[in-house]
Amino acid sequence: MSTNQWAIGIDLGGTKIEVALVNSSGLLHDRLRVPTDSKKGYKTILKQITETIHQLCDKNGNAIPSSVGIGIPGQISRSSGIVHYAPNLNWHEVKLEDDLSKMLDKHVSICNDVRAATYGEWFYGAGKNCDDLVCIFIGTGIGGGIISDGRMLTGCNNTAGEIGHMTIDLHGLECHCGNKGCFEALAGGWAIARDAQDMVRTDMKSGKILLAIAGNEIDKITAKTVSEAASKNDALAKKNIDNLADVLMVVQH
Amino acid sequence: MSTNQWAIGIDLGGTKIEVALVNSSGLLHDRLRVPTDSKKGYKTILKQITETIHQLCDKNGNAIPSSVGIGIPGQISRSSGIVHYAPNLNWHEVKLEDDLSKMLDKHVSICNDVRAATYGEWFYGAGKNCDDLVCIFIGTGIGGGIISDGRMLTGCNNTAGEIGHMTIDLHGLECHCGNKGCFEALAGGWAIARDAQDMVRTDMKSGKILLAIAGNEIDKITAKTVSEAASKNDALAKKNIDNLADVLMVVQH
Repeated sequence: MSTNQWAIGIDLGGTKIEVALVNSSGLLHDRLRVPTDSKKGYKTILKQITETIHQLCDKNGNAIPSSVGIGIPGQISRSSGIVHYAPNLNWHEVKLEDDLSKMLDKHVSICNDVRAATYGEWFYGAGKNCDDLVCIFIGTGIGGGIISDGRMLTGCNNTAGEIGHMTIDLHGLECHCGNKGCFEALAGGWAIARDAQDMVRTDMKSGKILLAIAGNEIDKITAKTVSEAASKNDALAKKNIDNLADVLMVVQH
Repeated sequence: MSTNQWAIGIDLGGTKIEVALVNSSGLLHDRLRVPTDSKKGYKTILKQITETIHQLCDKNGNAIPSSVGIGIPGQISRSSGIVHYAPNLNWHEVKLEDDLSKMLDKHVSICNDVRAATYGEWFYGAGKNCDDLVCIFIGTGIGGGIISDGRMLTGCNNTAGEIGHMTIDLHGLECHCGNKGCFEALAGGWAIARDAQDMVRTDMKSGKILLAIAGNEIDKITAKTVSEAASKNDALAKKNIDNLADVLMVVQH
């Protein structure tokens, strides 16, 4: 087995670290997932990452990866390899690329997580052979990546693609970012949960299925609850999803 | 005088053709403006353009331009030199670059007018030495151009930068394009006129200055009327401009 056949890809989140062993064709060979000890701080997480990499390589015939790529939920500088701010990890100005590179004695590349996923779709997925591509990732928040004329857009501060904070409803509800009517504030996971909770509060009778799935606690209704209720044909959940579809149609246009 | 010292730049609009003689430093040397005979069709306009170029060159010591650039208010293909659609000129699929090139026996480049203006600001104006730049042009409609990481964005169909048709008010007023709440439908010249006319209809007393400037015809109130009234400290016109400023703040963010 050649020593440069393998690479490591890491998806670092506020709740889990997922480490993947990938072959030179970009195919996933194996992976490990561990919960993030985000409260214990930067150094503990670095240790978790390196230990999980070693564990995964050991498990796969002592695979020796030639390089490591890591996706970060935050604002980074690709030129300096510094994470400026990652809210879910509570990291400010950490030299992740340097630190991890020293610990692993390997080349490490950092990238915003959503931009990393966009590269994945571009090179190996839905956007293969496309020169123009927009990826929208809807989770609790909304992020994105933009390929234009065969190049990933970065923007002047490496935040191009943050389409979750485009204003699409000038007079809309407040977003976590402080503005009003952002795409994320209308269609992100937290916004879906907020709308469903409001709907149930207004009409408890129509909300009984949503409420039952959430263990009869309105505050525990999430986007997942809405999805479950909709699959059971619940009218309120389906209305919530129709509203979401309207917003997505506007953005897609 | 060297034969390749000069270039011709043309701003072709629905109401006027402006032809400029530009030196090799990109500086404007002289210009001529003629009204566009847009109702007489494509061939008449081509003739107008070539005649105006000859007139301008004759006027400037028989200057011999080495090439010609022309900005078009419409959708074009740079690779084929075809204008797909220019609504104000009523042009569909015309081979402008080829046709004009033959008539002038010179190299001709066509470009969307707003993107051409963005190149101007980038090379010689407000965006000189910038790698990231957004130009917003507010006239009757709203257009734009985007420079990202030292390159003009084109988009997959050469319409990148059409920021006038971003939705910023999901439930807003209808735009000419058929969608609702586009940036242009809130802040374009025609939207400013529509809002001012509505304000005057609702409150004729407060609208008396606007009305007087427009010759006492509500339908003749334009964005220019609003600007004139505001410079006279008219409260209604100033309210209209404040609303516009709010919209621009949202887009700028």
